[in-house]
This record gives sequence, structure tokens and C-alpha cells, in this order.
Amino acid sequence: MQLKVQPIDIKVGKYKVVMNTLDAKELGVYEGDRVRVRNHATLTAIVDFTEDMIAPGMIGVYHEVQEQLRKEWTETVDVEPAEKPKSAHIVRKVMDGKKLERDEVNLLVRDIVEENLSDVELAAFITSTYIRDLSEDETEWLTRAMIETGEQIKFSTSPIMDKHSIGGVPGNKITLLVVPIVAANGLLIPKTSSRAITGAGGTADLMEILAPVDFTATQIKEMTEKVGGVIVWGGGTNIAPADDKLIKIEYPLSVDPHCQLLASIMAKKGAVGAQKVVMDIPIGPGTKILDVKAGRKLARDLISLGERLGMDVDCALTYGASPVGRTVGPALEVREALKVLETMEGPNSLIEKSVVIAGMLLEMGGAAPRGQGRELALETLRNGKALAKMKEIIEVQGGNPDVSYRDIAVGQHTAEILAPSNGYIIEFYNKRIVQLARFAGAPNDKGAGVLIHKKRGESVAKGQPVLTVYADKKEKLADAVRYAREFPPIFVEGMLIERVDEVKGL
Amino acid sequence: MQLKVQPIDIKVGKYKVVMNTLDAKELGVYEGDRVRVRNHATLTAIVDFTEDMIAPGMIGVYHEVQEQLRKEWTETVDVEPAEKPKSAHIVRKVMDGKKLERDEVNLLVRDIVEENLSDVELAAFITSTYIRDLSEDETEWLTRAMIETGEQIKFSTSPIMDKHSIGGVPGNKITLLVVPIVAANGLLIPKTSSRAITGAGGTADLMEILAPVDFTATQIKEMTEKVGGVIVWGGGTNIAPADDKLIKIEYPLSVDPHCQLLASIMAKKGAVGAQKVVMDIPIGPGTKILDVKAGRKLARDLISLGERLGMDVDCALTYGASPVGRTVGPALEVREALKVLETMEGPNSLIEKSVVIAGMLLEMGGAAPRGQGRELALETLRNGKALAKMKEIIEVQGGNPDVSYRDIAVGQHTAEILAPSNGYIIEFYNKRIVQLARFAGAPNDKGAGVLIHKKRGESVAKGQPVLTVYADKKEKLADAVRYAREFPPIFVEGMLIERVDEVKGL
Repeated sequence: MQLKVQPIDIKVGKYKVVMNTLDAKELGVYEGDRVRVRNHATLTAIVDFTEDMIAPGMIGVYHEVQEQLRKEWTETVDVEPAEKPKSAHIVRKVMDGKKLERDEVNLLVRDIVEENLSDVELAAFITSTYIRDLSEDETEWLTRAMIETGEQIKFSTSPIMDKHSIGGVPGNKITLLVVPIVAANGLLIPKTSSRAITGAGGTADLMEILAPVDFTATQIKEMTEKVGGVIVWGGGTNIAPADDKLIKIEYPLSVDPHCQLLASIMAKKGAVGAQKVVMDIPIGPGTKILDVKAGRKLARDLISLGERLGMDVDCALTYGASPVGRTVGPALEVREALKVLETMEGPNSLIEKSVVIAGMLLEMGGAAPRGQGRELALETLRNGKALAKMKEIIEVQGGNPDVSYRDIAVGQHTAEILAPSNGYIIEFYNKRIVQLARFAGAPNDKGAGVLIHKKRGESVAKGQPVLTVYADKKEKLADAVRYAREFPPIFVEGMLIERVDEVKGL
Repeated sequence: MQLKVQPIDIKVGKYKVVMNTLDAKELGVYEGDRVRVRNHATLTAIVDFTEDMIAPGMIGVYHEVQEQLRKEWTETVDVEPAEKPKSAHIVRKVMDGKKLERDEVNLLVRDIVEENLSDVELAAFITSTYIRDLSEDETEWLTRAMIETGEQIKFSTSPIMDKHSIGGVPGNKITLLVVPIVAANGLLIPKTSSRAITGAGGTADLMEILAPVDFTATQIKEMTEKVGGVIVWGGGTNIAPADDKLIKIEYPLSVDPHCQLLASIMAKKGAVGAQKVVMDIPIGPGTKILDVKAGRKLARDLISLGERLGMDVDCALTYGASPVGRTVGPALEVREALKVLETMEGPNSLIEKSVVIAGMLLEMGGAAPRGQGRELALETLRNGKALAKMKEIIEVQGGNPDVSYRDIAVGQHTAEILAPSNGYIIEFYNKRIVQLARFAGAPNDKGAGVLIHKKRGESVAKGQPVLTVYADKKEKLADAVRYAREFPPIFVEGMLIERVDEVKGL
């Protein structure tokens, strides 16, 4: 069928076209079917229908299709029904609980990266793996395919170290300490990090206060070889691009199928060439892993997948019921981490967790004998080598190495959340602390966040400040305070279901 | 956040908006999240992102959102993050295998009808029910909710009869005989039918050769009360609209979850007020039901769901391995059915199946004693009462009652598919016969289709015509013949994997 091209200037991320229902009927295609569109080139696009927006005889082509057709633009194109891609049948196999062959996993991942599957098909895949999970073989192949369909960094030296946190604990800024400690001891650690999606600040959101974080894979390799480590944004590279495509479907469904969680983590580590990896698995209410049993299972699965991929994985089950350190939000967290590097002053929860994780890496990488990693990490902090290395990292990424924690600007609008009665803090809601920081503007407003004066188990007197909320914008501070009134982030014994009812600073 | 409205003149079937990634980041929303858009009115829309198509400070609003906002148009709108609808959490419950409450099913169906769920969420629901199925309670509530969220016909007399075929057998034009037979015996039968999606012609595609088929629920009621029966297109009404929305997701996934199949059939029967229903369940390769065991299970489930809904359901397991009658394609099938009504001449498979199904309905409706329905049905055909009733039905729907089978125009371009050797036909591929008719132009080209000279088990001589392909358009005939060469629709014993290699008439 010859149809006249009508450009639609919208990017939809896929090859998509719109036809009039009359033409579609004539052609024998239905919503969600594919058509082959041909001028000089040929492409396969998913069809949407309309009764009135596109006239019969016309075909609406979205941006991505236009781009392809514009290589040799013609007024009309030939349109015919096209078969589903083979990967759509592979999705159906997963729905039916049938095991996939390695070739099928490869094809599926390639079609995910190349946007050949519709959102409906991707959602069916995600839902099926959520309900049924994939086998160990399939998960390994998925991980390998995710690595191979993206950019990869290959170092000529070894070992290449890495760390990853499963997440869910607020204020987990330890990467800012662990990377310089490890690199200061002669090991290479090309750390890619994420930005926050539902959190108050990912490591990339934090680091970009100190230096640019957006680099290509080649630049990451060069910088790591030069100074031993980097702290960059993974999303700026084309590392494991299939993962991003899957997350776009997982996020609206609020699911993270077990096999995808494993593949997503390990693919990102594998793609940067990591050989020895420590996984930080925070455990407790509000984190992704509710108890030690679930943590051990995840640890075993990560270690096992690592073995299959030739990667040495150690796991640390960590305390996740309270924030790490006493700050949540980009600038506040950077200030807290830098202060530890500069002065060794700071919350024990931050220093201790950092040296334990760094110590594991030092031992795995052969920089410290077994059992002495923590001590070496602590010493590296104390003797200023970690600070010196952090300055090198900041400098190589294009930041100002002369920065001090004193220079980090935090939100100028503040409000204090006061204890409503005397007693001990018996509940401390991580998720509410994060929401509070988000209402205050984090992670987008760098100065926004929460400073925690009192944690679970500490005693407070009525009227004493428990939290200070920081915001860059006055109206966001008001939003945050309203939120804290409605959803008190802490509970003092005897407080029962009273609400936070005194707020200063507004 | 105040944003300036930028209309996008595309219908997307849902409330959707597009924001620049910078604004989205500032607002703290991600792809697939919802935002509340407010001028004088308020609505909740799903957000897509763009880096360049919509400038920061602007919000692209698709057609459906524009329609709402235009009631009191303003240049700018207020945009803030919105929670997921409760039905999204209900979908998650289904994904997690948790049982739903009746209220939850109602809310879910309402949000499906009102397009409040994204395609990703709908696909997750369909996939979950495909893998896990719903309980009997949930399926009943789903069916009731599907009935209640659409138009309903309520007759003041009873019984109201209906029939339904599970489908999958080509040439199943029996409705054109069953409805007039039943109505001629004083029973009411308001038959709504579908158009073909993957077939060569649904009953609605056939009937519209004789009369218009697109009516409102009120018109269906009035016509049925006047002449006893109608044969109309269900899609022209607003009967069980949730079903159409779900089919739009099921079709691209090529799945039909068991609970949805049951709910879909029974909701359409319930909505037209049917009280006594015969289900035709064709069994055999190429149909939806592969063996008698599966057919019995489906029959039991339909009868049980009918009981819960207060509907009397009888099921007929029928032979589905060969086409019904000897024609496939709208005009050919209408001609064959009309000829039976006018002359009682026609294939036994068509006459016998029609009188059996009609006979069951006559017995259920009390028009014939148990065991004598088939005989009464046959007599109604023989004595011309069925023909007279069909003419009334055609007339009440606005067609020409003086039509004869001789007047039905079939495709003027024909080609014969010849037997490649002497022997018996040992394989007859239903799906290939349907594909052949579709390549020839069916169901959109009314004259296109296949006339079957020889069926499974019949003997043929080399060079004897087995099939005649009809087409309205010459090029489509060529497509069909090419298809038949590549995928022979019949196999003669001893033919092995030879191909059909002689084609006349081109």
C-alpha cells in the first residue's frame, strides 16, 4: 500500500507510525501489529491507529522513523504488514514458563537495546520474570548479553576493584570515602554510580558537587589508569544500555525481578572490567532486603553469578535501619564525607562502614593481608592519603582539588523538627526521612536535605531539635515541614500517635 | 510548577503529557509517573519525557488532555506530581498472586474503561492473569464489572436466547441459520457478533453484506422485540467496553488468559440480557481448544460462571478440524448460508451443525421438548419459516429482504489449486485456508475467499481442483497463490513435501 508521509515531530523512542483505521483495515493490520515501511531504505515500525488525526492515504511517522526515511526522503512510502520480531515469540516463551536458549537470550537483549519491542511486550517480559524468575543459566546469559550489547572497558592491568550498594538506606555516602581509600593503596577502582530515582541523592548526584561526572567509557578508563579511581555517572556512558530500557518499565510497575536485579548489578560491574567486587547489602525495614535470611540469599546469588562471570564477589550484610552518618541530601552528605577525609571527625556509622567496606576491597585486591584491611583503610584515612587521593580524583574529573568541606554550600532556608516529648527515639522511618529531603528539593536542589541530630535509641528532651531540614527554596521548605507534620519521621516513646507540632524557622 | 501549554494534535487514547527532562527532574517525576494538571479543572495524566521536543517551561498536551483543558482554556497550567491510581496497586496485587476483593475488581475495571491505566500496567495485569489465572470469585466479579461498566439491554419478556462460538474453525457461518431458526419459533435472540481479527470473516463481516450491522443497544432491543432476532456488530455498541480495552493488549501478546476468555464471552452475553445460551466449542488442531478434555474443562467453567451469573449455559463440543461447509470468506459464506435457507441444498457439515445448535436452543427455550429440538430446527429450515424470518431480520436491520443467494457477488478473479497427485487428502490445514483467504483480501474485500471442493479424507485425482481462490483484486489473487505455493493448505497421501506447482486462472 502506497501512503503519503506526514511527519509527526515527537520522539517516542521507537520506530512507530500512525495509520487511519480504514487503511489499516484494508491492509489487515491491528493495533500493536508491525508494518514494513519502505522508500529506499526499509524499516519495521509498530502501528497505532486513528480515525481522524491521520487521513486515509497518509501515514503519520514519528521522529525516529523520519530520521531513517530522511536519509533519502520520498513523498510516499510503501507499507505492508510485517511479522512480529522473533524476540516477541521469545517473550511469549518466558510467559509460558519455557526455558530459553542462550541464542534466544542474546536476541532478546539485542532487540531490547534496539527498541524493537513494544512497551506491552517489555512489560509482559518483566512481569513474567517477576512472577517466575529466570534460571541461573538464563540469568548468566542475560548478564553477559547486557554487557556485550553496550560499551565495555578493558584494562590491561589487574586487579580491577569495584563496589556496589543494593541501596535503600538513606545517606549512604561511603563511596566518597571508599574509592579514595582503595585507590590510595595502589588499586584501580573505576566506580560508576547512579543518580537518585526515588532516593534523596545517588552517589553521582553527590559527586557532581565536587566535579563533573559525565564521561565516556574511554575517559573513565584513562582517568582510572592515571589516578587509580574515579566516581562518575554510569548513565553518561553506553554501559549495559539494556538495563536502562528495562528500568523504564520496571519503575512504573514498582518491581525489580530478582534475575533482573542480579543481571543489572553484575552487568554494570562486568562492563567496566571489574574483577573483584564488594557488595554492600543493607538490611532492615525501609531497605530492599528485609532480613538477614533474604540478605544471605541475595549474597549467595550474587557470588554464584560472579563465579559464572569470572568475577570474585564478596558481600557485606550491613545495618540499614538508620541512615549512614547524620546527613541526607547531596550537599549535606558531601560536606559530611569531606569533613571525615579532612579531619577524621564525623559520625561513627559513616567512618566504620566505610573502612569495613574499603578494608574488604584492600584484602581482596592484595593490598592488605586477610584480617588487616579495616586497619589499613582507617590508617589511610588518618594519614591523609585518602584525602590526597580524593583531591587527585576531583582534579582528574575536572573539579577544584582545593575544595574543603567548609566551602560546600548547603540550603539557606532551614527549619527544625523538635522532639514532642521527653524520652528515647523508638522509631526512625528511613523512607520518611528520604521523602522529607525530597520535599525540601533533593536531589535536584543540591543544598536541600536533612541533618539528623538524634537517631534511633538516643534520648531527647521535649523541644530539643531532632532534625534540621535544609532547602534552597523557601516554598520547598514549607512543603517539607507540612510533610513532617503529617508523617512524623521519628517517634519518641510515650509519644503515641501525637504529631510533630512545633516548627521553628519558618 | 507553572508550565505553558503546547498542544500536540495526536490522540493517544489516554490522558498523556510530555515534559522536558529538566522540568521533570525539578518536579521529581520519572517516566511513567503521573502528574496532576490544573487550570480551572484538574486531571491526572501519565508523563513522557523529551530532551528537545518540548522546551523547558512548556508542557506538551495530547488531544485528550487538550479536550479537558479547553473547557476553560488557559495559557499556563499548574503541574504537580500525582500518586499512582489505586488500580495500579491492585495490578501489583495480581502480580504478587494475592486475591482481590470485589471492590478492587470493580475499581480496576472502571479504571480500565476510563483509560486510567498505562499500557505497561495493563500488560502486567494481562500477563499476571495469563500466568496465574484468577479465582472463580474474581472471574465472576470481573464479568459483572465488565457488564456494569457498559450499556446493558434489559428485556421485559423471557427467555432471551443467545449463542456463542469459541472460534478457530474457518467458515463457521451457522449464526446466519441458527438465529432465524430460533426466532422463527417465537424465541428472542439478540445476537451480537464480532468482526474478524485474525480470521477470514466474523459473523458481523458476513451479515453486513445483507444489511447494516452497526446499531445502538436501544435499537438492538427494539428490533429484537419486533422480529425476534438480530445479527449485529457488538463493537458498534458500548457493551462491555472493558473487554475491547483488554483485547488491545492481549492481541499483540497473542494471549487470551482463561479468566479473561470466560469473562469476555459471558459479559457480552450478560449485557444483552441473555438468559439461555448455547456455547459452540470447536475442537481440533487449528482451533483454540486442542482436545475433548480441554473442551470439557472450558464447558464446565462456562456453565459454572453462568450459574453464578444466573444464566443457563449449555455447551456443544463440535468438530473443528475442518471448515464448516465449503466456503471461507464473507460473500462466499453468505451465499452458501442463503442457499441452504432458500433451497435446503448445501454441505451436510453446515446444515447438521446449524440444526444441532439451533435445536439445543429450541429445547432450552421451551419451543421443543427435550430430544426434539434438532428435528424442529430442520423442519423450520425445510418449511421456509427460517428463510421468511431471515428476510424479516434483514429488513428490520435496513437491508433488502428480496435478496437471493444468486445475487451475492463473489470475487471476479479466481485461481484453482489443483491436486498434485492421486490419493486421499490426509492433511487439511485450517490456519492456512484462513491465511489464503486473507491474502486474497478477506475479510475487507467481501468477495475474497476460498471455495473448498475436497476436504480431509476425500479422494482426488492428480490435476483435479481442490480449492478455488476468489479475489476482488487481481494483485491480491497473485499474493494468495504465491502463499499457497509456499504453504500448501492440503496434503495428499504420497505427496510428501512436494509443493503445489500448478495454478490455473492467472
